[in-house]
Amino acid sequence: MLGGVDLGGTKIQVVIVDEQFTVLGEHRAPTPTTGRPAGVAEAIADAVREAAHAADTDPATLEGIGVGSPGEVDGGVVTGARNLPGWEGAFGLADALLDELGPPVSIGNDVNVATNAEASLGAGRPYSSMLGVFWGTGVGGGIVLDGKPWVGRGAAAEIGHVVVKVGGAKCPCGRHGCMEAYAGRGAMEHHARVLQRKGEHTDLFEIMEKRGRDRLTSGIWARALVRQDRMAVRIVDRAIEALGAGIASAVNLLDVEAVILGGGLGVRLGDPYRRRIEDAMLPHVFADERPPPLLLAELGDHGGAIGAALLAGDPQPVKG
Amino acid sequence: MLGGVDLGGTKIQVVIVDEQFTVLGEHRAPTPTTGRPAGVAEAIADAVREAAHAADTDPATLEGIGVGSPGEVDGGVVTGARNLPGWEGAFGLADALLDELGPPVSIGNDVNVATNAEASLGAGRPYSSMLGVFWGTGVGGGIVLDGKPWVGRGAAAEIGHVVVKVGGAKCPCGRHGCMEAYAGRGAMEHHARVLQRKGEHTDLFEIMEKRGRDRLTSGIWARALVRQDRMAVRIVDRAIEALGAGIASAVNLLDVEAVILGGGLGVRLGDPYRRRIEDAMLPHVFADERPPPLLLAELGDHGGAIGAALLAGDPQPVKG
Repeated sequence: MLGGVDLGGTKIQVVIVDEQFTVLGEHRAPTPTTGRPAGVAEAIADAVREAAHAADTDPATLEGIGVGSPGEVDGGVVTGARNLPGWEGAFGLADALLDELGPPVSIGNDVNVATNAEASLGAGRPYSSMLGVFWGTGVGGGIVLDGKPWVGRGAAAEIGHVVVKVGGAKCPCGRHGCMEAYAGRGAMEHHARVLQRKGEHTDLFEIMEKRGRDRLTSGIWARALVRQDRMAVRIVDRAIEALGAGIASAVNLLDVEAVILGGGLGVRLGDPYRRRIEDAMLPHVFADERPPPLLLAELGDHGGAIGAALLAGDPQPVKG
Repeated sequence: MLGGVDLGGTKIQVVIVDEQFTVLGEHRAPTPTTGRPAGVAEAIADAVREAAHAADTDPATLEGIGVGSPGEVDGGVVTGARNLPGWEGAFGLADALLDELGPPVSIGNDVNVATNAEASLGAGRPYSSMLGVFWGTGVGGGIVLDGKPWVGRGAAAEIGHVVVKVGGAKCPCGRHGCMEAYAGRGAMEHHARVLQRKGEHTDLFEIMEKRGRDRLTSGIWARALVRQDRMAVRIVDRAIEALGAGIASAVNLLDVEAVILGGGLGVRLGDPYRRRIEDAMLPHVFADERPPPLLLAELGDHGGAIGAALLAGDPQPVKG
């Protein structure tokens, strides 16, 4: 059995899988919002213990544990993980988890492992070239060309930072006009808070409080959209427009066979919104007589964690 | 000896090269602005005869002739070559040239052959991954990954149609907000004509008439910039901003080792403008601690034609 951990800005998702990557147990915990990287490592270890318990096993007996992490991954060290507390510098996450849990730990870039999971086990199986778009707190990307991940010099596939509007909105990364500045859930929440402070009405934060959250999760956005909350509709419309333009730009450059849409918002909002993003792409796709299909990630919420387990079971791990 | 033809929207550039791809003779002629594809084929054949004459040889004795063509290239047939007169449909260019000249004819996509030339013989030699950006009538792109051209399903590297502004200016391709809508010489000329009709002053068209041209060539833009013509400066500033954002988007996706800047305007405006585009890229490059260098195409004006000759000499031609 293998363990797979998807370390996100909002949640830690763990799966325990067998050799066929069937999920035998899982656990989800919120990502700590305060504290140091060591605190995040402890939260991961706790979540792995819970998932192992759910799979009727002991973490120490796992053949390996894989982690998909934000930030820059070099071996077992993670640097500059935005969206994680106190994680501007380098932290030896693999060693910390090894100490806590026992089995060997492999770490990869979160979106690369999620892309690899969809390419190997999910919606990307029929294709030799694909682009993965993970619409969540940020907007991550993964590229597969000729059946292999393309990582460039280690920082490729940053589709969230494709520019969709010169001189446009400020992105959480500090730059202007990035797709993520319009479509990242973090930026969308920031935008909603600014509009609310200006006196505009929304139910978003009321739903958040009722559900005992302190952030606008994908579920909260989904509920507000069902209620046709005007601010939520407007911010999501803007996100869809940005996603359409940014994904089309990537398609015009790469001419991949398929685009896979995943991430918290992508999975939660599902097919109706997938279709809207596909419609928003089309006016910008150059080879528009045969645009690539935009497909929902098949592994859903578990894709990142299953991809991390793939990494743990793979002697040739995806480059971080 | 080999012949290489760069078929552009403005000019037909022909070179005759030896086995080391040293240029032995060359000829340049304006691309016909009226007539049918057959008329363009005749103009190409005439230009090849002139170049062969300059190299003291006969076209019939060439080992092969390569052509870099706009539009969609499939074998010897070119379809939908925008910027060429009456070329919306398919035309058997290879057969037409074979009839006129004699030697075997290979045809490839113009920007792919120019990228290949820079990768094999020019500024791209030290790199295994690169992006070529050809700033001319349109803005073309070519991608080399792991030492090989990446063409996707045949339509990759359309960097001119990366979206830099959602809801932005209309592009000659009919879409909105493409980089080429701001940076293509065709779009720049259109913009200048609109502003002039609105009563704004510019020397651009005066310079054009004095030089006996009917289009704003790269040389005319260069002269207007030297004179600090306000409209020319403004339109070129806007082009540079769009090039910076669009190239940065491609770098964020591909994380290539180098970007090569060529094309009529790229070559004519040279290093000071290369530097300005590099400065315009930087604020949008995600991995900004090591942005790829932006290098001028070393083969200059002859790159496309030399690349076409490479194609003629290569038993494994670049895919069109």
